[in-house]
Amino acid sequence: MKIVSYLILCTLILTTCTTSFAQNEQEEDAQFIREIYNHALTDASCYEWLRGLTKNVGGRLAGSPQAAAAIPYITQILDTLDLDVVRTQACTVPTWVRGDKEMVRIVNSNQIGTQELNATALGHSVGTGNLGIAAEVIEVHSLDEVDKIGREAVEGKIVFYNRPMENTQINTFGAYSGAVDQRGSGASKAAEYGAVGMLVRSMTTRLDDVPHTGALRYKEGIEKIPALAISTNDAELLSRLLQREVVRVFMRSTCGPAAPATNYNIIGEIKGSIYPDEIILVGGHLDSWDLGEGAHDDGAGVVHSIEVLELLKKMNYQPKRTIRCVLFANEESGLAGGKAYWAASNEAKEYHMAAIESDRGGFTPRGFTFDGEAEIFTEKFQKVYKWLPLLEPYGLSFSKGYGGADISGLKSQKGLLIGFLPDSQRYFDYHHTAIDTFEAVNKRELELGAASMAALVYLLDKYGL
Amino acid sequence: MKIVSYLILCTLILTTCTTSFAQNEQEEDAQFIREIYNHALTDASCYEWLRGLTKNVGGRLAGSPQAAAAIPYITQILDTLDLDVVRTQACTVPTWVRGDKEMVRIVNSNQIGTQELNATALGHSVGTGNLGIAAEVIEVHSLDEVDKIGREAVEGKIVFYNRPMENTQINTFGAYSGAVDQRGSGASKAAEYGAVGMLVRSMTTRLDDVPHTGALRYKEGIEKIPALAISTNDAELLSRLLQREVVRVFMRSTCGPAAPATNYNIIGEIKGSIYPDEIILVGGHLDSWDLGEGAHDDGAGVVHSIEVLELLKKMNYQPKRTIRCVLFANEESGLAGGKAYWAASNEAKEYHMAAIESDRGGFTPRGFTFDGEAEIFTEKFQKVYKWLPLLEPYGLSFSKGYGGADISGLKSQKGLLIGFLPDSQRYFDYHHTAIDTFEAVNKRELELGAASMAALVYLLDKYGL
Repeated sequence: MKIVSYLILCTLILTTCTTSFAQNEQEEDAQFIREIYNHALTDASCYEWLRGLTKNVGGRLAGSPQAAAAIPYITQILDTLDLDVVRTQACTVPTWVRGDKEMVRIVNSNQIGTQELNATALGHSVGTGNLGIAAEVIEVHSLDEVDKIGREAVEGKIVFYNRPMENTQINTFGAYSGAVDQRGSGASKAAEYGAVGMLVRSMTTRLDDVPHTGALRYKEGIEKIPALAISTNDAELLSRLLQREVVRVFMRSTCGPAAPATNYNIIGEIKGSIYPDEIILVGGHLDSWDLGEGAHDDGAGVVHSIEVLELLKKMNYQPKRTIRCVLFANEESGLAGGKAYWAASNEAKEYHMAAIESDRGGFTPRGFTFDGEAEIFTEKFQKVYKWLPLLEPYGLSFSKGYGGADISGLKSQKGLLIGFLPDSQRYFDYHHTAIDTFEAVNKRELELGAASMAALVYLLDKYGL
Repeated sequence: MKIVSYLILCTLILTTCTTSFAQNEQEEDAQFIREIYNHALTDASCYEWLRGLTKNVGGRLAGSPQAAAAIPYITQILDTLDLDVVRTQACTVPTWVRGDKEMVRIVNSNQIGTQELNATALGHSVGTGNLGIAAEVIEVHSLDEVDKIGREAVEGKIVFYNRPMENTQINTFGAYSGAVDQRGSGASKAAEYGAVGMLVRSMTTRLDDVPHTGALRYKEGIEKIPALAISTNDAELLSRLLQREVVRVFMRSTCGPAAPATNYNIIGEIKGSIYPDEIILVGGHLDSWDLGEGAHDDGAGVVHSIEVLELLKKMNYQPKRTIRCVLFANEESGLAGGKAYWAASNEAKEYHMAAIESDRGGFTPRGFTFDGEAEIFTEKFQKVYKWLPLLEPYGLSFSKGYGGADISGLKSQKGLLIGFLPDSQRYFDYHHTAIDTFEAVNKRELELGAASMAALVYLLDKYGL
């Protein structure tokens, strides 16, 4: 009995100590995270960095002068943060030039006469030639429909893809995924059957006059035809006209490819004091489309990521693991920056224990989505999930889901890939448009995003995976 | 043994039936709620109703022509919904008139010379008289500080309250509550010690040039002195000057009270088919401040509430309980509409089983806050809490918290008081300002709010409390 009593006593003491230790740990973590948010909401620099990136540098199309100008601007910011490493990593990017303001015009409609539409060339589209083209329009709602109606219906015409994003999806990224094949693959599909041009309804849930650009991918061996997006209001108008008459459209664009250019990823890091080989990456992409200022896409992700470093520095936090901020080149058309980074990382046999990407805008944080190779995912996600109570007071939740395009190539390193998840309701109002400007970003929302990422980085660094 | 076996069998069958019934119920509820959201996101009218209320009617200050014009506008909307009851309820509201554009001017500063500040008179403030007043400014940070420095420091001066809203609070309403005593009670506190005027830093977390109005309350028996809010940027400027020199300010306002007016609550309802005496109220307030269009505060709440009725009608839902939409007069200064409603309701011995108020803007829904008398609260809240899994797919959570000002007087009827909780980050950018306009409201966010309220109404109606 004595031994049993002694054992029970020991167990009790041990349990009490462990519990009390765990409680202290949790209080310490809660306190630290609270301070991260306090700093983010009172003395973070991310909003002013974004102002500079959007207003002074501007839209940063891969290969453009602005994409080049972003390098010294961002490097200079990183240089102020007293990091252990600030470096660039070159990659070759496809260059595309928009040329003159595009023209899309309904010609001689019986109902409305001649009318200009709000249009923008799709990224990597060829131009129409200087004289433009005019042809009859045929409306379709899917790539499959083009296969079905075939050459007889399509040849010599402009194919107009008009399937809307599904407004009923609560997550607007789901609605985007469900519609964007039209923009990405619609031109080549139409060209297979002899179409001379392609129009697509802009990728947004709104009805407005704002055209949305974005990349298309031409299929090898198929003729490249000019492709433009028109605003949703104009898509509705064109569709209404087509119900009542044959509609001819004139379109003109002088866009096209130019010589490939060298662009750069920018990397800044704080070396880990105990496990320097375990990397926690935070990143976003530095390039953007050219129409606006690339504020939500992805200026927000860029300054979120740099802000994580600034916050840790301001709090004199010395990480055990290496915290690396990577600002990727050329996400929007081909992931050249991401690919260069993955190749170098795999070559160096690096281990990204976790990689967090911010590429869904600068809106109010709702949480994070987690991804990883099947064999490691469940255990690591369960570990992370235990930290959730520390982040719930800030409105965050955790779920399984996509990490992000620029970190996708790190999956084979068997760490967690994590996507920062802001509220998605407004994202596609601005995505790839002239109105994705600094003014569309709210300061508090942006700061809360950076704090949320920094809080997760702190927990990942402290406890590992 | 036979009896026992039989009993076990019965229990098993019963359990299976109950579980399967419960599962079917839950699937039916999930389906119905999904359809509510589908309707809200595709064919709801709330956004267009809000356009009319803000653009055609405009800011709806109690007692103003616009407050009167809102009555036929809203009544006409309710009339289109084929409701069982549409009626108005009169109340007497205090009327206040802003007069000329206010003037607040730093006079002869050694540092910046003479400069205009962005200012607005506080609601119910007296004016300065036609000639204005000029006096030395003294800065304070709380009502207590005025008590402490007393008459010697304050007499003959303009007291400038400059304690900011706390940026670090995640819920901006908490930050507002912590600062708004300056606006509400600062004038009388300063007048107690002989101040001749009062300025207050605008109630917002932003630094910008937009002054925010809002009600003050003069203390009985204390001299009424003119009170104005200045923008946060100007508050910062004034504070910096005061650190280096004596600053004199000229201020002029010609606002003041006018004769009380009759305004109206508007009430529309669908009678319950089984329990008509159990009322589920949805409401917001029809009045607003005069500077902007009262879009988020509280046009959004008005159209949210009407949309709940429209959605149930569109889905041919016949409620068991009475669903009543109440659009209250005069929330902003004295709750005359709410008080009239409570008095009539209590007089008629009505029972509001639940009342949902939307008065925190038209932003992305985050959930609901629940309140009620202590003796009934726990049981009823626990019951509601079980429905949460049905609403979590829409990003909603439930917590204890304030219901809302206009429904607060219904607490004694022992139902649940429920506040609709949208994301709070942007609310105080617009609150009580000239920029609280239709353009500041996002269509999807508004529609999701209405759907969230309708979904909760459906569950409350179906299961009762």
